[in-house]
Amino acid sequence: MVEQPMANPVKASIAGASGYTGVELVRLLARHPAVELATLTSETHAGRRISDVIPSLRGWAEYELAALSPDIADSCDILFLALPHTAAMASVPGFLERSCKVIDLSADFRLHDAKVFEQWYHTPHQTPDCLGRAVYGLPELYRDKIRSAGLVANPGCYPTSVVLALAPLMGVDWVDADSIVADSKSGISGAGRKANPATQFAECNEGLSAYNLASHRHTPEIEQELSALAGREIRLTFSPHLVPMTRGLLSTVYVNMVRDVTLADLTGRYREFYKDEPFVRILHPGEYANTHFVVHSNYCDIGLQVDTRNRRIIVTSAIDNLMKGASGQAVQNMNIMLGIDETTALDVPGIFP
Amino acid sequence: MVEQPMANPVKASIAGASGYTGVELVRLLARHPAVELATLTSETHAGRRISDVIPSLRGWAEYELAALSPDIADSCDILFLALPHTAAMASVPGFLERSCKVIDLSADFRLHDAKVFEQWYHTPHQTPDCLGRAVYGLPELYRDKIRSAGLVANPGCYPTSVVLALAPLMGVDWVDADSIVADSKSGISGAGRKANPATQFAECNEGLSAYNLASHRHTPEIEQELSALAGREIRLTFSPHLVPMTRGLLSTVYVNMVRDVTLADLTGRYREFYKDEPFVRILHPGEYANTHFVVHSNYCDIGLQVDTRNRRIIVTSAIDNLMKGASGQAVQNMNIMLGIDETTALDVPGIFP
Amino acid sequence: MVEQPMANPVKASIAGASGYTGVELVRLLARHPAVELATLTSETHAGRRISDVIPSLRGWAEYELAALSPDIADSCDILFLALPHTAAMASVPGFLERSCKVIDLSADFRLHDAKVFEQWYHTPHQTPDCLGRAVYGLPELYRDKIRSAGLVANPGCYPTSVVLALAPLMGVDWVDADSIVADSKSGISGAGRKANPATQFAECNEGLSAYNLASHRHTPEIEQELSALAGREIRLTFSPHLVPMTRGLLSTVYVNMVRDVTLADLTGRYREFYKDEPFVRILHPGEYANTHFVVHSNYCDIGLQVDTRNRRIIVTSAIDNLMKGASGQAVQNMNIMLGIDETTALDVPGIFP
Amino acid sequence: MVEQPMANPVKASIAGASGYTGVELVRLLARHPAVELATLTSETHAGRRISDVIPSLRGWAEYELAALSPDIADSCDILFLALPHTAAMASVPGFLERSCKVIDLSADFRLHDAKVFEQWYHTPHQTPDCLGRAVYGLPELYRDKIRSAGLVANPGCYPTSVVLALAPLMGVDWVDADSIVADSKSGISGAGRKANPATQFAECNEGLSAYNLASHRHTPEIEQELSALAGREIRLTFSPHLVPMTRGLLSTVYVNMVRDVTLADLTGRYREFYKDEPFVRILHPGEYANTHFVVHSNYCDIGLQVDTRNRRIIVTSAIDNLMKGASGQAVQNMNIMLGIDETTALDVPGIFP
Repeated sequence: MVEQPMANPVKASIAGASGYTGVELVRLLARHPAVELATLTSETHAGRRISDVIPSLRGWAEYELAALSPDIADSCDILFLALPHTAAMASVPGFLERSCKVIDLSADFRLHDAKVFEQWYHTPHQTPDCLGRAVYGLPELYRDKIRSAGLVANPGCYPTSVVLALAPLMGVDWVDADSIVADSKSGISGAGRKANPATQFAECNEGLSAYNLASHRHTPEIEQELSALAGREIRLTFSPHLVPMTRGLLSTVYVNMVRDVTLADLTGRYREFYKDEPFVRILHPGEYANTHFVVHSNYCDIGLQVDTRNRRIIVTSAIDNLMKGASGQAVQNMNIMLGIDETTALDVPGIFP
Repeated sequence: MVEQPMANPVKASIAGASGYTGVELVRLLARHPAVELATLTSETHAGRRISDVIPSLRGWAEYELAALSPDIADSCDILFLALPHTAAMASVPGFLERSCKVIDLSADFRLHDAKVFEQWYHTPHQTPDCLGRAVYGLPELYRDKIRSAGLVANPGCYPTSVVLALAPLMGVDWVDADSIVADSKSGISGAGRKANPATQFAECNEGLSAYNLASHRHTPEIEQELSALAGREIRLTFSPHLVPMTRGLLSTVYVNMVRDVTLADLTGRYREFYKDEPFVRILHPGEYANTHFVVHSNYCDIGLQVDTRNRRIIVTSAIDNLMKGASGQAVQNMNIMLGIDETTALDVPGIFP
Repeated sequence: MVEQPMANPVKASIAGASGYTGVELVRLLARHPAVELATLTSETHAGRRISDVIPSLRGWAEYELAALSPDIADSCDILFLALPHTAAMASVPGFLERSCKVIDLSADFRLHDAKVFEQWYHTPHQTPDCLGRAVYGLPELYRDKIRSAGLVANPGCYPTSVVLALAPLMGVDWVDADSIVADSKSGISGAGRKANPATQFAECNEGLSAYNLASHRHTPEIEQELSALAGREIRLTFSPHLVPMTRGLLSTVYVNMVRDVTLADLTGRYREFYKDEPFVRILHPGEYANTHFVVHSNYCDIGLQVDTRNRRIIVTSAIDNLMKGASGQAVQNMNIMLGIDETTALDVPGIFP
Repeated sequence: MVEQPMANPVKASIAGASGYTGVELVRLLARHPAVELATLTSETHAGRRISDVIPSLRGWAEYELAALSPDIADSCDILFLALPHTAAMASVPGFLERSCKVIDLSADFRLHDAKVFEQWYHTPHQTPDCLGRAVYGLPELYRDKIRSAGLVANPGCYPTSVVLALAPLMGVDWVDADSIVADSKSGISGAGRKANPATQFAECNEGLSAYNLASHRHTPEIEQELSALAGREIRLTFSPHLVPMTRGLLSTVYVNMVRDVTLADLTGRYREFYKDEPFVRILHPGEYANTHFVVHSNYCDIGLQVDTRNRRIIVTSAIDNLMKGASGQAVQNMNIMLGIDETTALDVPGIFP
């Protein structure tokens, strides 16, 4: 409200605006000085005002929710797809033809290989021709490509935390990249807003469990990115867990050292690797990442430790799964695509407590 | 960070910067375009960087914490006292003499009558002469006086929610003002950051209890303000409860009608009363206030209901106890005192989920 | 497992065994020395083992869930109906004809007056002839009638807490029974196990709200029981709230005094009234009921306070909504109906923390 | 209460009865048919009734808390030490001389080697002569020795979960025992009841972090037991985390396979290994352990998975940290020492939800 509107604001639309990542996009874009919201869609709540569905947005987003139609691309410059996997996959080529840039928060365009997609998502990819045009939207790795992209595949929450935790180690000969175990723990909002027996309050509260061990769909996404960094095929064991909290995602990543690396070496390497990154903070040597200090912000905090007795490096990385793990990163990508300051509308510290 | 600094920023200091209300002030002021942080104090953590104590502030507040000294008023234009009750009471006259404006978040200067203070706080007031100079910092009632105040007594969290819930009814002949019952429920952060056996996680989690029924210190503060509005002495039953959540405060307020009032009448009255207020939202008739939609924002949401069977009005009001209930309101007061837009640095929607 | 089975155990069946109150019944009855479980039904999970649906029951309840059929009454001596309101209403006469005793945990037979039922539940009562045969299953008020009842209407969770909080005041001339306000707060499990957008973890967690103010269906049930105790028609304002915790229900009940009653008088009255009750504990004068100390037990803890400034009595009562507020009370009723020790299978202290 | 007291009950005392493990012992022993509570001590609350300190125990444990004195051993047959590490270490020989059996819930006598103790606890062991007399109280491994022990060292919560998760693999040539990573997650009650800034509700709630990576004191305890099972020295990487819930502990344990093991092989091996154990449940192949289904019970649930792509076994094990992880296991040990049914007073299913 205090920001001065730009002369020619960019028109942004959001498909799936009433889900958790959609609401987070609305919240961020409502305060973005270079953006004007155009169309917000919701199949569940079409016809209602979004501020009646999500009363926190009262006074901030007084838009009527529409059903999704292909014409959405006509009325906007950039379109965020905050839909379930495969829901908009077939429509993307049409959006791009209308010169609308697309940031897809689903998994549809993250994997470069349509066969790998089919293997993990158990359905054929409907628009494999688009895969080559999609840029994987992790700015710390692909900022230059994102700048000119028409289609950005916004990374998954788990891959964001694991890839950022490991990237600085992929280009040095310090570790055995075949020994990686990533044990990740996520808040419940990561499961989305759809009513689901398993994510009812009384089912999740005071409970903690692993799920989809060695079979979660984010595995090939992490492997694709680590392989690209390492220059050879990397596989890892990836274990997701559900933790009784709303937001926050912590990954504890283990990798064997092949030579003796000190905590100082390690910290130096990470600080150098991320030295220009506005949203990655390397903690003091020996500090541990804590989701409490990143939630409601776009930061990824990385803590480092060396287990000298077992010659293992342990990296902890913490993000807010709806911010750096989804919508915050999507806005960061949009800023890069628009050529404006990358931190616009994301320049806030986390909220504590 | 994106905001342009003003030519001559106001220098603000915070005494008690490492408590919950102090950290919230740091977070808000670090992004305030008209303010520059000067001195941050903490008795517990003096000598440490605040960003090491509260890592969410990394990159936002790289200040070394100092011990509190009377000289703090020399280096700032405005001083926030975020200290326990009575801790700074005796020092306030000295701060004011040095032309430093003071916003006190404690209860020390909220009650106009030193005898009432002594009766409820069980200790004599040390600087009763200052009481007359203090303005009660509820902008919805005292905006004009706050504008020129040197000392603002920032309201308590419970009184903010209860007084805002009842103010529109105090000037009309609709209710029996001697029948008020306010049943309030607060998140645990309201108890402060000090280590306390009763607010350990495992003591509070999955537990809900009343406390200090008919004896809580916020009672005379609420009564003072309702009496001022009604033009006669008002007493109420005030019942606080602790709820297992970090932030949020909901008051459910009951008052008997003396004539038949419809929900439409009631809603109309509240909408009119608060029509120019940036931080009070009157919900749709029949909607209930929900803390989930105000936390992390400075809003007070008010829901209205009429119990026609029992001729009672029921008002629900929800705030974030650390924002509108403490630090957000303190910044709102500061903005008014500085003559700048009242919503500066507070213009954010709540975060959901 | 350690208990010796009785020579002729009572056969008990549970309709709706996979909901929260159903699971709680299974847990309690699996350890009951006088009971043998017969048939467990679940429409959602028919054909699955209950221990696969609820793995906490592994080794305790290895039964296959069946769909509900009228024949269920043939294979058991006592039938617990843990179904949604109206789901089994029409079948109850048939069950009774087969000499099967019925404890109904739904609201179907709690109200004596079919017209009142229709007014609040917006559907006609299907078997009004049964209403006269149903005994309201609050042992503290109706133990003798329960002993010989064929059909027990197990009370609602809110009515249990509010009626127990007020019963000792209904027979004395201390209060104005037309001034009652009951402000109740419940954990989320009270909303049942069905997937519901509003009770998803991320919707409820860190949120607190009122709902159904002055219109909740438990209102006429409370009024019926208070009226019976007072010997005249009583109405009250009843306000339910949802609190982010799994179990526990706290009612804070306000009533105006018509003569000066001391806290000692009040405590004496309550201690006398409940002196033979195994599951009601009157706290020390001035103590407040806290759900944390009753959850996982069948106790109702009652705390008393007098607001002398406003001549009001404030009663706090805490229960576990699934135990004394539902399944624990149902087992208590069964024990009474079977003529065995009322505390059998319920003789456990609460679990803390 | 319903249990018949034995003719000559065993007298049990608890040192440290007002901490979390102490309260859990009181709760369990108050219902134990073979035990009579003798002396309960608490330094913090000496002179108060335990039921006033912990109101859930009202009607169950009406004992005045005493300060700890060496004479405590005179009035009891068995003494539970639920004290901080090293607090009672020096007194244990005296207790044993008086023919009092001791179950120590602290870490003082868990490690066989006084040098290892000193290395990890940074203080010399005060009574190293006792170490040889202490039996490590994990019944699944040492039942026979526990039967005749005078001093039982009750295992730590993390070691219980990790050792039970790995024991069946230590005696077979399926895995590389030098590749073990144990990523454990605990509820906050594991940190004890002492007021601590880090375990205040608002600090822990909605936060998740690692701590003491590669340096936690439970590491040598796990290594001692795995080494004993393997017949050679084993080291592992052990990573504890704090999760915002009161109870529950989940370990996710990774170990490399040295030959191809199927999930069926693995499940068979675990089922065989634990076939006579009353408190270990092996889940269906592919199921994951979930703390929600073991809390408030003495079970350890173990879930198995094979990551064939990476030739790794992943074992998840869930316990209630205060039951199988502390006081429940202590009572299990006591039952074994007394020669009575091992499940006495522990024969309850978990509570869900």
